[in-house]
Amino acid sequence: MSELRRHPFLDQWVITATHRQDRTFFPPADYNPLAPTKPGGFPTEIPFPEYDVVVFENKFPSLRVDAPDPAVPGTELLPVRPSHGACEVVCYSQVLESTFATLPFVQARKLMRVWRDRFVDLSSRPEVEYVFLFENKGKEIGVTLFHPHGQIYAYPFIPPIARTELENEREHFIRTGRPLMEHVLAESAGNFIFENDRFAAFIPFFARYPFEVYVTPKTHIPSLAQMNDADLDELAEALLAVTRQYDGLFGFSMPYVMAIHQQPSIPGYDFAWFHVEFYPPYRTANKLKYLAGSEAGMGAFINDTLPEVTSAQMRDIPITPIR
Amino acid sequence: MSELRRHPFLDQWVITATHRQDRTFFPPADYNPLAPTKPGGFPTEIPFPEYDVVVFENKFPSLRVDAPDPAVPGTELLPVRPSHGACEVVCYSQVLESTFATLPFVQARKLMRVWRDRFVDLSSRPEVEYVFLFENKGKEIGVTLFHPHGQIYAYPFIPPIARTELENEREHFIRTGRPLMEHVLAESAGNFIFENDRFAAFIPFFARYPFEVYVTPKTHIPSLAQMNDADLDELAEALLAVTRQYDGLFGFSMPYVMAIHQQPSIPGYDFAWFHVEFYPPYRTANKLKYLAGSEAGMGAFINDTLPEVTSAQMRDIPITPIR
Repeated sequence: MSELRRHPFLDQWVITATHRQDRTFFPPADYNPLAPTKPGGFPTEIPFPEYDVVVFENKFPSLRVDAPDPAVPGTELLPVRPSHGACEVVCYSQVLESTFATLPFVQARKLMRVWRDRFVDLSSRPEVEYVFLFENKGKEIGVTLFHPHGQIYAYPFIPPIARTELENEREHFIRTGRPLMEHVLAESAGNFIFENDRFAAFIPFFARYPFEVYVTPKTHIPSLAQMNDADLDELAEALLAVTRQYDGLFGFSMPYVMAIHQQPSIPGYDFAWFHVEFYPPYRTANKLKYLAGSEAGMGAFINDTLPEVTSAQMRDIPITPIR
Repeated sequence: MSELRRHPFLDQWVITATHRQDRTFFPPADYNPLAPTKPGGFPTEIPFPEYDVVVFENKFPSLRVDAPDPAVPGTELLPVRPSHGACEVVCYSQVLESTFATLPFVQARKLMRVWRDRFVDLSSRPEVEYVFLFENKGKEIGVTLFHPHGQIYAYPFIPPIARTELENEREHFIRTGRPLMEHVLAESAGNFIFENDRFAAFIPFFARYPFEVYVTPKTHIPSLAQMNDADLDELAEALLAVTRQYDGLFGFSMPYVMAIHQQPSIPGYDFAWFHVEFYPPYRTANKLKYLAGSEAGMGAFINDTLPEVTSAQMRDIPITPIR
């Protein structure tokens, strides 16, 4: 009950995944499927009494290794493909009450290593073209399980936003001989909200969302696969800093979509530049930014905040020490 | 406090409009700004004791004729432009409790004529490249004024979704000699949820959203400007039919984004094919579809419903007579 259908007006694959309608929806706390399985207790997704970081295949995958043949044959105009790929769940901690921002540094470091392992493994599969690590956090984003976790989608195509970004990165590199992110970083240097030796965090001048943050290496690294352990430690530190700034912004644990942009798994993208993008849904402490007519209908974003102002707000937020 | 900033990774203009943060937010019923102004009462946006259909400039416009010079100069990499254009509000009726679906046919007909007039007028302005008529309906979409109304954005650029769609329509026309929508219509003919002489409504095989509906002329019409009065009557009928089917689907007045796709206002797009797209936010009667990691982060849509099934559901819904 899952397949890929090509959208001929937008030239993109739409994933039809009807079995997901029945997926777990706000389970009571005693039936948290991402908790460890206590001896004699409810059997969760994780059959161990304790865990550190856990990755497993999503119980309701949109993409899978053994994708079924499509139910409908498709036509030349409207082709259909099996939904090959993978959907994985990454539990950040066994502690239900934690979030990425509240993880101890040692735990965040471990998570970075798990991300790298999964990225390398999934990227090596022949059917996979793009490995997307992300986190949906908060009920405002539609999250129905509060246990701290992220997800990984291994797509059998390069998804539309990555495709557009990579085309523009390629064009910029050919035209100027310089990576686009290097150029953007240079122009954003006065506005970093956090930096350490290897990473910088900033609200881009062209942010589409209020409080949208980029976290990027300061020099060219295409993906997690090329990061050494020291890089991963600095990445963990930068992500903890930004998520703690978010939590300090309005005085509550900030929801967000965290999207990790990397090199595709197929050749020809050596110029790709690893970075993490955060989109929080709040434009003020009690007002949400909705993707309505202009954004959902036409893709034209209206940002009700000024990146120069929000940068200063974020930078000034005191955070608990990380290391 | 409004300007256009170019997003270099996505090659699109982001509208920065910080004054909108203060816009009207769920006013009490006595202070409905879209109501007529009663003699001696609160002065609303409409200084008349009664009205039929009203169009006026948005009080908090993101785009305007007299756009200010940008506050920041911009650079070669990150250019900035004034936010020229227009943002208008279209009140469908003076009756607060009505919706598009509940308009009498005579009122919907008038609205179509107002849409055509505004489309033609705004399209003729030299700074405008694309006129977008749309409706955000329902608090689930972020609407903060319940009075039935739509909006018009006259953009000084072709927005990203229209641009992609037009590129694919052009490519298809050059390759096959046939408009893409004509081809899609032919393949969708068995699955119409409504049709009259000149228009058809269907859930496309490649729908990105649950219960996404296209309403399109059966023959090539680029925009409202080329529609005669008989066309507009049939369009009104088709839109009333679809919105009444929506209201019957789950037993409540269905929220949606309604997006009207038309020919741009600059030359070179004779092949463009007028159509209306509806995106309701519900995937079941009590579950919302969120645009989270895969959609917002990567642009890869997951549809939890099967268009063939939802088409049959919509088609079978009895609606009140229209004409």
